[in-house]
Amino acid sequence: MLFHVEMEVRIPHDLPTERTDALKQAERIRAMELQRTGVWRHLWRVAGRYANVSVLDVSGPQELHDMLSSLPLFPFMEIRVTPLCRHPSSIHDDDR
Amino acid sequence: MLFHVEMEVRIPHDLPTERTDALKQAERIRAMELQRTGVWRHLWRVAGRYANVSVLDVSGPQELHDMLSSLPLFPFMEIRVTPLCRHPSSIHDDDR
Amino acid sequence: MLFHVEMEVRIPHDLPTERTDALKQAERIRAMELQRTGVWRHLWRVAGRYANVSVLDVSGPQELHDMLSSLPLFPFMEIRVTPLCRHPSSIHDDDR
Amino acid sequence: MLFHVEMEVRIPHDLPTERTDALKQAERIRAMELQRTGVWRHLWRVAGRYANVSVLDVSGPQELHDMLSSLPLFPFMEIRVTPLCRHPSSIHDDDR
Amino acid sequence: MLFHVEMEVRIPHDLPTERTDALKQAERIRAMELQRTGVWRHLWRVAGRYANVSVLDVSGPQELHDMLSSLPLFPFMEIRVTPLCRHPSSIHDDDR
Amino acid sequence: MLFHVEMEVRIPHDLPTERTDALKQAERIRAMELQRTGVWRHLWRVAGRYANVSVLDVSGPQELHDMLSSLPLFPFMEIRVTPLCRHPSSIHDDDR
Amino acid sequence: MLFHVEMEVRIPHDLPTERTDALKQAERIRAMELQRTGVWRHLWRVAGRYANVSVLDVSGPQELHDMLSSLPLFPFMEIRVTPLCRHPSSIHDDDR
Amino acid sequence: MLFHVEMEVRIPHDLPTERTDALKQAERIRAMELQRTGVWRHLWRVAGRYANVSVLDVSGPQELHDMLSSLPLFPFMEIRVTPLCRHPSSIHDDDR
Amino acid sequence: MLFHVEMEVRIPHDLPTERTDALKQAERIRAMELQRTGVWRHLWRVAGRYANVSVLDVSGPQELHDMLSSLPLFPFMEIRVTPLCRHPSSIHDDDR
Amino acid sequence: MLFHVEMEVRIPHDLPTERTDALKQAERIRAMELQRTGVWRHLWRVAGRYANVSVLDVSGPQELHDMLSSLPLFPFMEIRVTPLCRHPSSIHDDDR
Repeated sequence: MLFHVEMEVRIPHDLPTERTDALKQAERIRAMELQRTGVWRHLWRVAGRYANVSVLDVSGPQELHDMLSSLPLFPFMEIRVTPLCRHPSSIHDDDR
Repeated sequence: MLFHVEMEVRIPHDLPTERTDALKQAERIRAMELQRTGVWRHLWRVAGRYANVSVLDVSGPQELHDMLSSLPLFPFMEIRVTPLCRHPSSIHDDDR
Repeated sequence: MLFHVEMEVRIPHDLPTERTDALKQAERIRAMELQRTGVWRHLWRVAGRYANVSVLDVSGPQELHDMLSSLPLFPFMEIRVTPLCRHPSSIHDDDR
Repeated sequence: MLFHVEMEVRIPHDLPTERTDALKQAERIRAMELQRTGVWRHLWRVAGRYANVSVLDVSGPQELHDMLSSLPLFPFMEIRVTPLCRHPSSIHDDDR
Repeated sequence: MLFHVEMEVRIPHDLPTERTDALKQAERIRAMELQRTGVWRHLWRVAGRYANVSVLDVSGPQELHDMLSSLPLFPFMEIRVTPLCRHPSSIHDDDR
Repeated sequence: MLFHVEMEVRIPHDLPTERTDALKQAERIRAMELQRTGVWRHLWRVAGRYANVSVLDVSGPQELHDMLSSLPLFPFMEIRVTPLCRHPSSIHDDDR
Repeated sequence: MLFHVEMEVRIPHDLPTERTDALKQAERIRAMELQRTGVWRHLWRVAGRYANVSVLDVSGPQELHDMLSSLPLFPFMEIRVTPLCRHPSSIHDDDR
Repeated sequence: MLFHVEMEVRIPHDLPTERTDALKQAERIRAMELQRTGVWRHLWRVAGRYANVSVLDVSGPQELHDMLSSLPLFPFMEIRVTPLCRHPSSIHDDDR
Repeated sequence: MLFHVEMEVRIPHDLPTERTDALKQAERIRAMELQRTGVWRHLWRVAGRYANVSVLDVSGPQELHDMLSSLPLFPFMEIRVTPLCRHPSSIHDDDR
Repeated sequence: MLFHVEMEVRIPHDLPTERTDALKQAERIRAMELQRTGVWRHLWRVAGRYANVSVLDVSGPQELHDMLSSLPLFPFMEIRVTPLCRHPSSIHDDDR
């Protein structure tokens, strides 16, 4: 089932550069991994912000939380979750 | 190019039922049409609300506005537009 | 799986009294029915407001939406949905 | 009597790791203790956030405050309290 | 126990004058009654607004809701409830 | 004349403990003093928050400001002031 | 003593034109009267809005409320009151 | 001097169609007129909303208000004004 | 022409005391200077807050910005500007 | 195509002065460069704030994001993007 997730990243400016870089690199690897498994179905950058809009396909809120809270940047993200379902006018098979 | 669009529908309760039904029916037909042309790329219902989250693939803000303002329910929708672009960690070819 | 749902009811004051009464009566019957099936697991009144806080146990966002949008008062409710999962410190078996 | 409590945890990133770990461990022990006594009746994690939704069964606002302000993470939590009462359509005996 | 209650009154302008007057008169009688019984302990007008700030002394959220929802102007009020308790620096015996 | 004052305390976590303790102690002494003189007429703790709701009886906004800005915790408080007056339905002589 | 008052006027569009005109005319007369007595010390239009910013010199919140609630447009105004006092750096004798 | 103005139009759905059409037509004529005189320097549609973003070049807030309040749709617009000035890094002569 | 300006001061608690004192002293001198020249026409303290409400008489947004951004406390102030103009019901010659 | 961009700059007060100065200088150079290429079409200072309102002419959200995220002050800016299109009443050829 699908969840719409908005993630806004706010890394404190006084975090050491190496730690920031390591976090971003780890985040990137994890994000790609989760896309390959099919869990992270869509991932877009919000133009002009250090933020993304995503659609995740998980077995429920538990898997969703486990996934999000395991992201390296999780402690520095403000996350907003919206459960999605099929729109009665949708003709796209993959929008469900 | 992609735009993320949230539409919340608020039909006044004193609109005659026939008009409401006609509007909804016309909206449905138009939405399907726009999905078939590929412009309305994703369309999800927000669980628990008379609202949707959509991703539209248009040639720019002008086509986006022309499309949205031509929707039969446009006068009764609150719309929020967010321009999207490619996320550096995305591996999905269709997320751009 | 569990979803936390807040429902605020705003019935327009110019709705005929009979229609309001019928809606409330139908809502009450439907709410009791859904509690008996186990779907509507918790239902509390918010003190001082025509609102409730609920916890629903459904198979996913789709069943959640179908249930909420079928409520007689749905057109007059402002609804906010929050997906829940197990808290690592929880010892209650039924909080999942 | 029942109170609905939302707790959002925001631990400053520059708190020493050992202190953070000790706080979390103490919080966990205290939360389990309060669940065993029956005061902390429900405890759910909000999917995607370092936050919880709880229902507490206390003798009044005084006990509620004493309990919440004694939580180890209290100085780092944003808390929102909503008093609950019996919903006229509720059939659950334990929702009061 | 004490609850802090803010009530903002918004009577629709198209309600017949007689009905508005009757509601206000009934509200006034009920408010005085509840003050005499000791339940409505404090009642102040917010300067410049059709609103009040009140402190109610009730046996719990249930009595609070029963009282507030029985007010003649309840359907036209926006109400915000905050549970109060004894302040550790308070020296007033009646502030509890 | 009466003013309704909400004070939310936010002490930075990196303030030395001794300074925090000294500030809280000084605040407590000053608050009790102002209650004894009759200026700080009501003082309640908001359940679940490091905040209070107060009613102050002063000669005007000038005395109110002098009093509030002289509180030891003033630099760490977010304060919201609401002027009160007599409610036409009030029967309490001390609510003015 | 001085109070800063912001008034935003929202006259419903379905009020009969004659009533609107009469209200505006009465408002204008009353506003001028209160300026002549010295109570309504400053009155400015907010550019681009049907709103004003005012400074009133009254004996306290009670006179302030009596004055504001007696304005013909009071039922259609959203009002925000802020108590003012002397600024320590002010050199203007009339700003108090 | 320049002012940034955002106008959101909200025409009530129960306004007679002829009146709405006449208002829109008058608005259009007036907007073009003011652009020709150079007062209304920029006028853009916000994609997806019945709203515009404008930059007006006027002699001051008085002329700005006179102009905005004379617009036929003024009673149905929510307007937000922001005064602009020259940006120190600007190289455009007409941005002042 | 007149602009209504609200300034809220938020000096970080970890700024060295001497620097804070020097800033406040410099701010005070500058504020008095600008009042003497007639530019800073009104200056009031908001009761209970480290904030002021001001009315400035300047030649336009450019002079307004130059003045505000030159204030010693500018980097620590949240500023909200509202352009004012003559109110049609005003009888005060100096309110323009 | 055009995008309306609001940028609010919030440089942390504990950033070393030299770094702040270098950032501002680099920002200025980059902003001028982008104006010369025609991408940054309009750039205004918001009077009274460390903020600007801009209109950018780019090939789409991707170029917009690449441009904004490459600004030296990007990590310290809060950015809000609004896609613009031609207003039906516009007579200005360059407003598109």
